[in-house]
Amino acid sequence: MYTGKKITRVDAYDKVTGRTKYTDDLCDKGAYTAKILHASIAHGKVLSIDTSRAEKIPGVVRIFTCFDVTEKHYYPTAGHPWSADPDHQDVADRLVLTENVRFYGDDIAAVVAEDETAASQALRAISVEYEPYPFVLDVQEAMKEDAPQIHEAYPGNLLKHTEIQKGNYEEAIKEPGLTKVEGWYETPAVQHCHIENFICFAQMEGDRITVTSSTQIPHIVRRVVGQALGLEWGKIRVIKPYIGGGFGNKQDVLYEPLCAWLCLQLGGHLVKLDMAREETFVCSRVRHSIRSHIISWVRPDGTYAARRLEAFSDQGAYASHGHSIAAKGAGAFAQLYPCENVKVDAYTVFTNKPAAGAMRGYGIPQAMWAVECHTQDVAAKMGIDPIAFRRKNLMPKGYTDPFSKNELYYDTFHQCLDKAMAEIGYEQKFSAYQNQTGDIRRGIGAAVFWYNTAVWPISLETSSCRMVLNQDGSLQVQLGETEIGQGADTAFSQMTADVLGVPVSQVHVISCQDTDVTPFGTGAYASRQTYTAGFAIRKTGLLLKERILTYAQELTRMPSYNLDIIDGKIVRITDGRILMTLGELSTQALYSMADSQHLTAETTSQIKSNAYSFGCTIAEVEVDIPMCTVRLLNIVNAHDAGTLINPALAEAQVHGGMSMGFGFGMSERMIFDEKTGRTLNNNLLDYKLSTFMDHPRLKSVFIENPEPTSAFGTKALGEPPACSVAPAIRNAVLHAVNVPVNEAPLNPHRLFQRFTEAGLL
Amino acid sequence: MYTGKKITRVDAYDKVTGRTKYTDDLCDKGAYTAKILHASIAHGKVLSIDTSRAEKIPGVVRIFTCFDVTEKHYYPTAGHPWSADPDHQDVADRLVLTENVRFYGDDIAAVVAEDETAASQALRAISVEYEPYPFVLDVQEAMKEDAPQIHEAYPGNLLKHTEIQKGNYEEAIKEPGLTKVEGWYETPAVQHCHIENFICFAQMEGDRITVTSSTQIPHIVRRVVGQALGLEWGKIRVIKPYIGGGFGNKQDVLYEPLCAWLCLQLGGHLVKLDMAREETFVCSRVRHSIRSHIISWVRPDGTYAARRLEAFSDQGAYASHGHSIAAKGAGAFAQLYPCENVKVDAYTVFTNKPAAGAMRGYGIPQAMWAVECHTQDVAAKMGIDPIAFRRKNLMPKGYTDPFSKNELYYDTFHQCLDKAMAEIGYEQKFSAYQNQTGDIRRGIGAAVFWYNTAVWPISLETSSCRMVLNQDGSLQVQLGETEIGQGADTAFSQMTADVLGVPVSQVHVISCQDTDVTPFGTGAYASRQTYTAGFAIRKTGLLLKERILTYAQELTRMPSYNLDIIDGKIVRITDGRILMTLGELSTQALYSMADSQHLTAETTSQIKSNAYSFGCTIAEVEVDIPMCTVRLLNIVNAHDAGTLINPALAEAQVHGGMSMGFGFGMSERMIFDEKTGRTLNNNLLDYKLSTFMDHPRLKSVFIENPEPTSAFGTKALGEPPACSVAPAIRNAVLHAVNVPVNEAPLNPHRLFQRFTEAGLL
Repeated sequence: MYTGKKITRVDAYDKVTGRTKYTDDLCDKGAYTAKILHASIAHGKVLSIDTSRAEKIPGVVRIFTCFDVTEKHYYPTAGHPWSADPDHQDVADRLVLTENVRFYGDDIAAVVAEDETAASQALRAISVEYEPYPFVLDVQEAMKEDAPQIHEAYPGNLLKHTEIQKGNYEEAIKEPGLTKVEGWYETPAVQHCHIENFICFAQMEGDRITVTSSTQIPHIVRRVVGQALGLEWGKIRVIKPYIGGGFGNKQDVLYEPLCAWLCLQLGGHLVKLDMAREETFVCSRVRHSIRSHIISWVRPDGTYAARRLEAFSDQGAYASHGHSIAAKGAGAFAQLYPCENVKVDAYTVFTNKPAAGAMRGYGIPQAMWAVECHTQDVAAKMGIDPIAFRRKNLMPKGYTDPFSKNELYYDTFHQCLDKAMAEIGYEQKFSAYQNQTGDIRRGIGAAVFWYNTAVWPISLETSSCRMVLNQDGSLQVQLGETEIGQGADTAFSQMTADVLGVPVSQVHVISCQDTDVTPFGTGAYASRQTYTAGFAIRKTGLLLKERILTYAQELTRMPSYNLDIIDGKIVRITDGRILMTLGELSTQALYSMADSQHLTAETTSQIKSNAYSFGCTIAEVEVDIPMCTVRLLNIVNAHDAGTLINPALAEAQVHGGMSMGFGFGMSERMIFDEKTGRTLNNNLLDYKLSTFMDHPRLKSVFIENPEPTSAFGTKALGEPPACSVAPAIRNAVLHAVNVPVNEAPLNPHRLFQRFTEAGLL
Repeated sequence: MYTGKKITRVDAYDKVTGRTKYTDDLCDKGAYTAKILHASIAHGKVLSIDTSRAEKIPGVVRIFTCFDVTEKHYYPTAGHPWSADPDHQDVADRLVLTENVRFYGDDIAAVVAEDETAASQALRAISVEYEPYPFVLDVQEAMKEDAPQIHEAYPGNLLKHTEIQKGNYEEAIKEPGLTKVEGWYETPAVQHCHIENFICFAQMEGDRITVTSSTQIPHIVRRVVGQALGLEWGKIRVIKPYIGGGFGNKQDVLYEPLCAWLCLQLGGHLVKLDMAREETFVCSRVRHSIRSHIISWVRPDGTYAARRLEAFSDQGAYASHGHSIAAKGAGAFAQLYPCENVKVDAYTVFTNKPAAGAMRGYGIPQAMWAVECHTQDVAAKMGIDPIAFRRKNLMPKGYTDPFSKNELYYDTFHQCLDKAMAEIGYEQKFSAYQNQTGDIRRGIGAAVFWYNTAVWPISLETSSCRMVLNQDGSLQVQLGETEIGQGADTAFSQMTADVLGVPVSQVHVISCQDTDVTPFGTGAYASRQTYTAGFAIRKTGLLLKERILTYAQELTRMPSYNLDIIDGKIVRITDGRILMTLGELSTQALYSMADSQHLTAETTSQIKSNAYSFGCTIAEVEVDIPMCTVRLLNIVNAHDAGTLINPALAEAQVHGGMSMGFGFGMSERMIFDEKTGRTLNNNLLDYKLSTFMDHPRLKSVFIENPEPTSAFGTKALGEPPACSVAPAIRNAVLHAVNVPVNEAPLNPHRLFQRFTEAGLL
């Protein structure tokens, strides 16, 4: 058994030695460089663009403006599977270049040059004449009747209104003796800050166009590039090399359409588009800033009678994933603490800001901020221990969601809380930190999270896999599910090794997807990799094994059901005797003069299940009141992600997620200039990303309840670690200083304001 | 139907516009350059190599000598499928670098440098001390008892003695009234002269090594690199891009093992090895020079009573394909003009010259030179019209070879001769050119050829294919059979389009093989591409079609046997109604929420048949006796290659082959310095390659007798056109001036000698 073991990452050596090839490494040096001219107003119309000076700069090949986009193929960018149902298709609101500026940074022209210097010089030499319109940056302001209108098709700037109605909220709140607890909670726009900025290059072969891209979703990029160019999808080929992080930003189709379009305009010449960090901040995607208003009606016994959520999700200028992110957060609100009477209204609203899209957690970090800050507030108001209050109200074992049919099979929340509390010494610290005085105070706080794996039944879940046996008994595995730094290839190798009965060193997962030959799979998102690919690996592996043993029967005269593959050898199970190695079998099969067979297998698995992942964070902080700083002393994440395929990689996933959650809670936010709509901190000097230097020792513990719907007992672990860190820190600060800080992040500016309001300063 | 039509090559546009990527285009500029130090003696031992001066040259990374090859993994180079039978495995007589020099040019050391200049400088700065041995350049000299011994394992330098015995030659020649006709015939060593010299590069990923190579046989290269490095074959990955010609030279494994070995020594760093033209001439492979001695015993009625062939095939210094090439020629001798009493001894003999390997025709151009010159001589001696004599004695319709079970299903020789003779006006010219006098004389001559397709039952024939359906109804096709400039991808596209019922523009053949993901197929040789791949395409296409129609049944409620795919549409055959496009079906299948399927298919076909290809050349020449020159006035090739997949490409194949045959007959030969063994004309200035400027209008005609063993009625056409051109020219010259020239080529030097001997000068 290789699953469950701490196998070294299959790509460790190459990554550590710098041998791994990323997109830029693969681009021929003869490529043209493309650079984008971004709008310098937040809202308006491009009246004219003067490129005459720019065109004279040596090395400039061509300049294309929004006025050159004569065939208007609007396309969506969200990395969702295509839906045959038009009502379920993503919003197609993008053009490769636009004359309708909707945010400061919108794409209005592109320079193609022989080198980067010429391209940059040309950008500066272009003059643009705009007709500026009023713009709106605040999500609730954007909903007002007189607000500037950003998309014609969406009056009131409302991209989506998500409603959940359960029971009768209005009637339920009339129950006598209820305590009303109300709060507003808000999270900022933050950026993914993957190390490798977005980059892609495109060139033509024959009448087809090949796009190599730093993406999480090659097969989806293929479809969207086809839509954006008005070409049949089979005319597009997308290649995904190793990527330097994505975190959901590369679950959007970013500039692949523009790059491919430029290539097409230039007769198929190789064109590279390499985003700068400043552009990545503003012109890729950000996490939705969400403002939530929660009202809870609590009975004296500490149970919920009715709950109300209004959420305002700031979509920015383009639709991207917006409609589904608020929906996911709303679902979490309704399910995490089940209550008979629930009313949710989530509004996803356009503003003149950078477009928001998928980011690790997909709405759940924002929802958990609101819900878990609020839960703490409710417990406080009711005078109930916050852990006890959660235990009482959380989704109980056996809970089944009527829509997804998801079931909670284990007493997982109690297990996670118990293990995390024991790890950090919660009880003792919780008591010790009560009623402190002085400038420096400590606190401990918890937050739980809910996360469901993969996207069924909202969207399609499908994963195909192909396996190819080599002469030496080793094999290649091809999947559309992608390695994006998380270690998916290693997990896939372990699963394959176990299904087939071969040493893990004999499994070669083809890391690079090529839509021409890679089986269809939609890519890395929704924490679906090990869950969905697991089905495809298991089904394909078993089919290949059956073919191998059938051939072994030809060679050995033993019926295949008396044979097995163990450690890469064909074993007669009746007496355990090794009959031949898998390599010997494969070589004989391939080169047989009697019956030559190239042993391979390929299958599609459609996944019609989904699985709840759960867990919690407990954070211990020290607050320096005069300095308005918070120091994280200890932190632990507990996860029930089902069976772990590779505990070392699982731990690494959790550590990374905790770091992102830490930044989200403590320091990260994008700041926009009210006067211009410009992003003021579009770089890693002005935007305070959480790094190793900020971390305490990150602790993770696991409850491995095997998920019965899953091929290998696994469920989501990629995104969950980022979901409950920020509210746990906030709750710890509340514990320390008794000041609720309802807007993330808890940076010194905000603490100064809140501490001042609270009279601590 | 697309087969049978003159479809434009699928790669035409990219090749014409220079967009096609070849091996060198794909190599990262950070690659190290490797250059080989070749021995400057013809035979001997390297005593020491002083690299001290060379190592000091800036940019030199490392220098490896034959003494660094401590693990001696001998490997074969012939591009044959592996055989599980050790007696049938190729001769493993090569090391990546050798201290035992066997020809002037042998590989004794290699420089790896940061650039080509440093590598070249370093080569010149290396000093070598040799112990020289006597050497031998003539094939029959090499068989003498006191000849220098080249390989310890092959005493007498005899690599292989091929014998064929049929009837009783010694008894048969005692029949009264027989006429004995005897002759010696000889062909020179020539080189393939593909435009792109051999090039490859290697680098490591993890513990595996990837070799990108200009080869015809990627899957075989993988195996041989594994053998040469002593690594499991699954640790090797070989990628084959477009190549600029091969003609059999790249059916040998050339420097891939050395390049991979250098990469391995350098910790996996990317190393490129790019051969110069001078090296390609000497250090890749050449066509075997074969000296043949034929004795025919002819009855007064013009039939053969007995026939004898002794052939001496000059293998050069290493085994390569040698053992099988003489065997193929010997088989042709025995089968083309069947005779009850035949005795053949073919000797394949090592000499201290460049190694001979596969070249277009694989022994048959040499055999046809001997046989068809001799046939003309026999007819002349018997006073029988040479065409009539051939018609009387050629393999008759219904002939079946007892070994291969090949059958001649049609009256193909007569058909080919009739068509060629009509095309060129043979009868009239043959009469007109009798009994000429004067300095300038014309003549017309014919030669036939025999060629069998693919290699069964000598070796394995297997071909696997995978097809992947895209959302728009287009599809990718993956095969191990390779495009080497001959147009295979276009033929594969046409065959696929017909099997599936889709427009040919919807078929994308993946031209680039990657042994990690490309189904197993042994590559381009033995004129096997359309024949063997045809089986795999047909079987896979039918399986994919079945899967498509089964899914169509799900969507349409029509039983699949009432459905067909016509022009990319699902058609109800009962009334011809179009129910949906294949693209609609594929999109629905892939994105179905009920039953998501990625429609693909993959199968292996083992081919246990073989097919005779036949044809003839008729050449008309004008001989200038005082100038000793021959001008080709007209030439026609007639071929029965079965059904033509693409008549335009078939014609192009024939034109190319005729040009090679023309060079072989008229001008090409490699010259070796008797004193040193050095090749004197290792470049395209000193070696007179046939080019467009030398050609008359090349005519080709076809007899399309569908081959019943074949998936698409096809049989060999790649190599046959090169087989009968040279003897046809020789026979035309004989007709013009009555001087038999038995050694190719008929260049002025040789004609001066022969005309002088004949008293014409």
